[in-house]
Amino acid sequence: MTPQRLVVVGGDAAGMSAAATARRRRSADELEIVAFERGSYTSYSACGLPYFVADQVESVDQLIARTPAEHRERGIDMRTEHEVTSIDIEARVLTATDRKGNEHVVDFDELVIATGATPIRPDLPGVDATGVHGIQTVYDGIALREHIEAEHLTEGHRAVVVGGGYVGLEMAEAMKLRGLEVTIVDAAPQPMATLDPDMGELVASAVRGLGIELRSETKCEGFVVDDSGHVRGVVTPDGDIPADVVVLGIGVRPNSVLARNAGIVVGETGGIATDVHMATSEKGVWAAGDCVETRHRVSGARVAIALGTHANKQGRIVGINVTGGNATFPGVVGTAVTKVCAYEIGRTGLTEREAKEAGFDFVAGTIESTTRAGYYPGAQPITVKMVAERGSGRILGAQIIGREGAAKRIDVLAAAIWNEMTVDDFWLVDLGYAPPFSPVWDPTLVAAYALASKVRR
Amino acid sequence: MTPQRLVVVGGDAAGMSAAATARRRRSADELEIVAFERGSYTSYSACGLPYFVADQVESVDQLIARTPAEHRERGIDMRTEHEVTSIDIEARVLTATDRKGNEHVVDFDELVIATGATPIRPDLPGVDATGVHGIQTVYDGIALREHIEAEHLTEGHRAVVVGGGYVGLEMAEAMKLRGLEVTIVDAAPQPMATLDPDMGELVASAVRGLGIELRSETKCEGFVVDDSGHVRGVVTPDGDIPADVVVLGIGVRPNSVLARNAGIVVGETGGIATDVHMATSEKGVWAAGDCVETRHRVSGARVAIALGTHANKQGRIVGINVTGGNATFPGVVGTAVTKVCAYEIGRTGLTEREAKEAGFDFVAGTIESTTRAGYYPGAQPITVKMVAERGSGRILGAQIIGREGAAKRIDVLAAAIWNEMTVDDFWLVDLGYAPPFSPVWDPTLVAAYALASKVRR
Repeated sequence: MTPQRLVVVGGDAAGMSAAATARRRRSADELEIVAFERGSYTSYSACGLPYFVADQVESVDQLIARTPAEHRERGIDMRTEHEVTSIDIEARVLTATDRKGNEHVVDFDELVIATGATPIRPDLPGVDATGVHGIQTVYDGIALREHIEAEHLTEGHRAVVVGGGYVGLEMAEAMKLRGLEVTIVDAAPQPMATLDPDMGELVASAVRGLGIELRSETKCEGFVVDDSGHVRGVVTPDGDIPADVVVLGIGVRPNSVLARNAGIVVGETGGIATDVHMATSEKGVWAAGDCVETRHRVSGARVAIALGTHANKQGRIVGINVTGGNATFPGVVGTAVTKVCAYEIGRTGLTEREAKEAGFDFVAGTIESTTRAGYYPGAQPITVKMVAERGSGRILGAQIIGREGAAKRIDVLAAAIWNEMTVDDFWLVDLGYAPPFSPVWDPTLVAAYALASKVRR
Repeated sequence: MTPQRLVVVGGDAAGMSAAATARRRRSADELEIVAFERGSYTSYSACGLPYFVADQVESVDQLIARTPAEHRERGIDMRTEHEVTSIDIEARVLTATDRKGNEHVVDFDELVIATGATPIRPDLPGVDATGVHGIQTVYDGIALREHIEAEHLTEGHRAVVVGGGYVGLEMAEAMKLRGLEVTIVDAAPQPMATLDPDMGELVASAVRGLGIELRSETKCEGFVVDDSGHVRGVVTPDGDIPADVVVLGIGVRPNSVLARNAGIVVGETGGIATDVHMATSEKGVWAAGDCVETRHRVSGARVAIALGTHANKQGRIVGINVTGGNATFPGVVGTAVTKVCAYEIGRTGLTEREAKEAGFDFVAGTIESTTRAGYYPGAQPITVKMVAERGSGRILGAQIIGREGAAKRIDVLAAAIWNEMTVDDFWLVDLGYAPPFSPVWDPTLVAAYALASKVRR
């Protein structure tokens, strides 16, 4: 019997999780697995790039969970430097172009699309100048780090980061750790647009307190480029900001062009539409990772969230289902954490703005506490904001800002939201208490209790 | 109209939470509140005593959340140094003895019993020698610290801690931080009897790795006392262990004598029996804190767990209910965290032994991971054990041992158990991911996924 062939497009977290899971569940006699990757790296942590750029992580190899050779050893026909250019679903065949421009036509029985996300690169004058760097792929990370090291950028030099979201803040930290003077240019009124403005304002204060210049509500209109083609500044309505290096951290969008061209349904978010099994509109075609949209469990809306943890989970779900299993991806609650120098930020569920958009009648409250018992050495400030449905008291969302020990407290709130707990349920949950870890009332419980009376008014 | 009178017996977390909550909900015109405390301190953190003894917390005042004067300012008739010696429930009256031996008879409409727990002090030869210290009350902490400082106990001196539970380990850390050579004498085969033996063995290795001598399966049979009445060692079947100071950390039992003598029903655990409203068997008599027993949500069994966080919650529940509100204490899942030097330990739900006792058919699995992405600076080892019901996959319990960032991960597992999640539900929960906080698969998710295939066999 000829084995079935599974073809995976995209060699990063989602695609290779699908491939590896399928491989573990089916022998090569039953299932042939071919995976295409445009670049030469596989299964790497893009999330780790800011720390590589900062030289907190020495070698890019440390970010690679599994190399192409390791995938091949495990029985996956891993074809790097092959870009899939078209898919003919009816004919069950796709075309890939290798580095030399040769075309390869490969047929498949089952197909996994895991083409990831594409960084938003604004079409602005000077964006292609030397020293203007995106930060999405390993190549971007290597290029930026080589640039910094080749030009000996350190104290006395200036970096401008365009964008005040997760990547922007992480790259601001990286540049700061490199010794550069850092300016963030952000079109939004506050950094971290995934937080409510009041919490974003706390982030803004924290960032400024770190000695990072934050230019909010400031549009990047282009780049100052010298005669050698090197960036020398960022153009804004308030004047030019000098820069020896510029990092773009404006965000990403699902890379769903290949799928769309093949006739696969793409949602309004720009992400490939899938059902709970991660099956696309086309039979035997699956999708996972940053290229898909998924269901937000609280709002019910479709969302496209580029995050390695979702990509890994969805990839595994596909690997199970494509081999005859039955696993469902339950959606997300929008949990995210980030760190900028000594500050930690976490969020889950809906912000006030999102709750309003979703049509909830809600109340919100914010409390301040400490990460450990107040008297215990190293107790750090933590601010917890919670949003709950009026009447029912169901927790809709939470946001955290604090120092060491703050951000991962979002997990227990994510679990509470996941399980549709109310503030009245939650303030009595049996969380771990000892002075080195928490005040006797964990800050998350304090936030819930503070809201409990408000939801009933 | 004469106001009702609420009398509280016990001036620590549970009693004063009840009093403070009732005070916030009722004015003095409606409700008079009288609180009796045997000692002269109120609302203090007994959990903080090891850190006070270690001199990580400078002053005992830092452990006091609210002084007697502060309670009085808030309209509570706080009577310290008054020991309640008997209660006549039928007559609605109790008798208290002050420091001078004078008796005071006080009547009440509603009564809250919050008499805490009593340390187990073994009736062994020499237990009353100078230098043998319990560590339950502020007085114990002050006495031990004064002893250490008066005798200049530091490097070159020896401490023996009797008991290898939370308090024993925390006190071992405190003595270590003081520079003493520390031996733990523990009757059990492994420290932390609230963990399974395999996890306890990891704790044993960790403790030994810290340079603490651990004598497991070693009974303390008495104390070597010199002519001046000062302890000089601990007697064991394997010979005497020299000691300049001895700390007893053997455990506590609910202090329910007063209640029992008054005819209030006490459970088999020795804790006062209450319903979900924290009402005792007698109308208008409530109980909260270390003196009560409560329901374990997983086993369904009654348990007596002395922990400040339960005491605070139960006290607040009483304060709400005694003033006409309706709040219920939902029970516990046995969550606990502790730290011994660089090691963190957490547990929640049932251990294998407890699951067996409760009659569950279960499987267990243990995984190793890191607290942050493996490549991120400061990533620390973490071991997670999980116990789940065979068939259903319901998570029954979890245990964690690791270094910085390990223990509080127990919270999300406590929330999972609280909500009766299965391993299949849990490995897909949307937890916070970023390299400084977690590998792309949080260790708790890895533990659940590892068990997912096992539960079905």
